[in-house]
Amino acid sequence: MPRPPQDTRPVVKLAQGPLSTTDTLVVEEPLEIRVAGDVLSTTMRTPGHDRELAAGFLFAEGILSTRDDLGSLSHCGRLGTPEFGNAIDAISAPGVILDIERQSATRRGTLTTSACGVCGRTSIDDVRARCQPVPDGPRLDPAIVHRALQTLSRSQPVFEQTGGLHAAALFDAAGELLCAFEDIGRHNAVDKCVGALLLRGVIPAPRSGSGQGAPALLTVSGRASFEILQKAAMARIPIVASVSASSTLAAELADVTNITLATFVRNGAMTIVAHSERLT
Amino acid sequence: MPRPPQDTRPVVKLAQGPLSTTDTLVVEEPLEIRVAGDVLSTTMRTPGHDRELAAGFLFAEGILSTRDDLGSLSHCGRLGTPEFGNAIDAISAPGVILDIERQSATRRGTLTTSACGVCGRTSIDDVRARCQPVPDGPRLDPAIVHRALQTLSRSQPVFEQTGGLHAAALFDAAGELLCAFEDIGRHNAVDKCVGALLLRGVIPAPRSGSGQGAPALLTVSGRASFEILQKAAMARIPIVASVSASSTLAAELADVTNITLATFVRNGAMTIVAHSERLT
Repeated sequence: MPRPPQDTRPVVKLAQGPLSTTDTLVVEEPLEIRVAGDVLSTTMRTPGHDRELAAGFLFAEGILSTRDDLGSLSHCGRLGTPEFGNAIDAISAPGVILDIERQSATRRGTLTTSACGVCGRTSIDDVRARCQPVPDGPRLDPAIVHRALQTLSRSQPVFEQTGGLHAAALFDAAGELLCAFEDIGRHNAVDKCVGALLLRGVIPAPRSGSGQGAPALLTVSGRASFEILQKAAMARIPIVASVSASSTLAAELADVTNITLATFVRNGAMTIVAHSERLT
Repeated sequence: MPRPPQDTRPVVKLAQGPLSTTDTLVVEEPLEIRVAGDVLSTTMRTPGHDRELAAGFLFAEGILSTRDDLGSLSHCGRLGTPEFGNAIDAISAPGVILDIERQSATRRGTLTTSACGVCGRTSIDDVRARCQPVPDGPRLDPAIVHRALQTLSRSQPVFEQTGGLHAAALFDAAGELLCAFEDIGRHNAVDKCVGALLLRGVIPAPRSGSGQGAPALLTVSGRASFEILQKAAMARIPIVASVSASSTLAAELADVTNITLATFVRNGAMTIVAHSERLT
């Protein structure tokens, strides 16, 4: 059985003096993501919502376009064995071929030979080639973004117990929460969000971000890296808001994909590093 | 030329009202790590100290055992081209064969077929098979660990400007700082620390952690994940201290490799999740 997201163990706390007690830690376990039996990636993740994680990962990598591409998505192995729960296999729907060669340039690269090398520019061009810029709009009151980040911080029950997780959540243009997930990996939490909406048939939307119930805002508990923006661009989410900083490459990717990137969203303030027109 | 670790760009700050200004962001760029021209891994990193990063990564993966294994370690391409600085190639010393098949189970897995699957247990066994448990000792006053974390937080000049980086630092048993590095990736900051001491010939030490100048304590600014403990185990560093939480798998790996793992080291307190005997 997959393990719960947290576990207890004996610890020694040093404050005034040593105190032997029990503490709760976040569970970290590898998940092999396979397509028709071939291992595509191994990610260190917090167990739970593995189907959402795998679906979101395969969508971000351009391997899965809609939930109709999927025949089945289930854990491998025999229930009750220790290995069960740490590998998940995607099988395509009849007549669909999932092209695992489509993996992004920043993912590929184990034991392959490359003449040209990957540079930041190549990675951005790679994402750009795979997704049109997000359409203009919607315009959101910055107060909605602040409330969304507050909702995100209330959606972290395992963090409350362990202090060891990231979280991500998706909201529509009215600020309604669509889904929220925790994971030891920031990118996994985002994959789980996108995967959940993919499995619900909400992603991809014909005009993502514009209708009620369509994802308009991705919030993340930590920083906004290139990888987070890459996943937002693939899912055509027009606004990304993070509690902490962004990197240069994340900001550059937001520029070219027409995504609004708001950082340091806290204490009533924010720093918008790309496409501020949706929030001002 | 490699880019500096931070860069400026125009931003809009929303507090009382919108304010157009300039802000400093941490630079994120991919680095291809190659061995004799073959791409082994692409990591998103903050430019600077790429040789230390690559050396530390190759050491953690079991590909490089000592600095004497290295013939050369240098950036690929032509100086002055945009690609220059984003790929680095390790060439072995005459008579040395660097075995790139040795990569760890959690790293491998792009487009390979696996029958058994990776589970947490397999990953731990993999590390265990590659490194003996760290010897007992040294015993450190917890005050040294607290001072080391304070030193770490003072060793973050780019974080001060950008708020977007992790940091890691190595100390000897007397609490003397050996090296400190910042990076957008926590694992990269650790690789840079280990790589720096490898290039200085301090790692591997015959009796790591026991002599003056030998690394006894690894401090990390964020959480302690499995990957951080894996790198500490390979470098035979007896004590790991983190500002934030650890995961279950990190704690289990600390158990079997005889590493002391202190977490939530802040405000004069800490929670020791494995081998508290070195600190009590």
